[in-house]
Amino acid sequence: MRRIRFRDHAGDVRLGELADDEIHAFPHDGSRIAGAETFDPAGVDVLPPCEPSKIVCVGLNYADHADEQGKDVPDRPLLFLKPPNTLAGHGDDVTLPAGKERIDHEAELGVVIGERAAKVSADEAMEYVAGYTCVNDLSNRDDQNVEQNWVRGKAFDESAPVGPVLATPDEVPDDAAVRCRVNGDLRQDSSRDRFIFPVPDLIEEVTTYLTLEPGDVISTGTPEGVGPLADGDEVEVEVEGVGTLTNTVTIPGE
Amino acid sequence: MRRIRFRDHAGDVRLGELADDEIHAFPHDGSRIAGAETFDPAGVDVLPPCEPSKIVCVGLNYADHADEQGKDVPDRPLLFLKPPNTLAGHGDDVTLPAGKERIDHEAELGVVIGERAAKVSADEAMEYVAGYTCVNDLSNRDDQNVEQNWVRGKAFDESAPVGPVLATPDEVPDDAAVRCRVNGDLRQDSSRDRFIFPVPDLIEEVTTYLTLEPGDVISTGTPEGVGPLADGDEVEVEVEGVGTLTNTVTIPGE
Repeated sequence: MRRIRFRDHAGDVRLGELADDEIHAFPHDGSRIAGAETFDPAGVDVLPPCEPSKIVCVGLNYADHADEQGKDVPDRPLLFLKPPNTLAGHGDDVTLPAGKERIDHEAELGVVIGERAAKVSADEAMEYVAGYTCVNDLSNRDDQNVEQNWVRGKAFDESAPVGPVLATPDEVPDDAAVRCRVNGDLRQDSSRDRFIFPVPDLIEEVTTYLTLEPGDVISTGTPEGVGPLADGDEVEVEVEGVGTLTNTVTIPGE
Repeated sequence: MRRIRFRDHAGDVRLGELADDEIHAFPHDGSRIAGAETFDPAGVDVLPPCEPSKIVCVGLNYADHADEQGKDVPDRPLLFLKPPNTLAGHGDDVTLPAGKERIDHEAELGVVIGERAAKVSADEAMEYVAGYTCVNDLSNRDDQNVEQNWVRGKAFDESAPVGPVLATPDEVPDDAAVRCRVNGDLRQDSSRDRFIFPVPDLIEEVTTYLTLEPGDVISTGTPEGVGPLADGDEVEVEVEGVGTLTNTVTIPGE
């Protein structure tokens, strides 16, 4: 099932199932059975499919991207944080920081947590997963390259478009493709079977230190092919089984 | 005014004013006028005085602490993040990560945001401040010293005791003392007039990149005198005008 969250024409935040390019809305009573009410996804404001209290991001989780960045493959996951101010939804026009030399796209598979998870072993980790989504880990290299903690570099407003849906684990193959296109050109094209640290290991490592809440996201790192964005670019992040997250970017003053 | 947040005997989360060592509770109707109902603060569960979506922390904001850590004084604030999993309240027994060589106390003045703040200039910054609180920026040096982003080092569960109250700006002098005691021994003793970056400058710098929400906290860095904690220690963080935040720490296996 591909669950979508959106704002309907009355302004209410709704949940529904995305199937055959149509939103089958869940009723207002909170039940999770798609009813007769349908919406065109292009005609509503699509919201991030979950409401994370934090996004825990992984750096250098594909050996190819570590090579590209001139870094050694880490012996444990490199972690960093994106707080809720970083969220943006599918279809949003994202305003990037002004006056920077280079802000990159990074296509990633996001793991959405379904139940509070503290000190969870890799063996049990998948029980805590609600599903998967697409994340674009937008990265301001000017600041990232000169700061100890990547706050200006990675946690600026709208630096984490997430969506368009939360796909349950059965929808997403073990070798799901992870791709990025900019203005239609393929820039990143890999698969999650190339992860250095697979999802259960990431959950064990993160929850050794940080309790994850329902709706929290682990963004699993990006493959090779990251590159700069220009004002007006359309960026698509595709995860096989989830779908395609599309955003345009605006760079003030350009 | 010193505003306190607590759980009453019925289990409800309440707000009130702390005055003369007594909580004067605000009524259940949400109004902010302390009523006749009073509580002994030692007899209730004191909660963090605000509910941050993120704590933006500042490193090396006192020149003396920069010296102590062998670091140059930075030309702009060193920032890092503590997400909501790090929160603990006054009086909580905090469980620290097991098996680490060194976990330190860091006494800090916390700035609590009152209104959504995006791209705010230093001149206007104080209009967005609800007040001040005490923060203990607990720091796991084992991991902090070996990771790029201080996630295991600074964002572990309960690594940010906050409280006991939110004191309005009029309560806190410009040269407010910032102190730490461990088991009654004075370990840190400085004042906020020794900040490298004063509060308005911190708000301008942070909100250039990250929108701050009501309840968010900027923790303004710690002075010299940081040091390790042992199982069972009682740590007090005092900010003049706010009061004293007290926590005991438990280190599993010690």
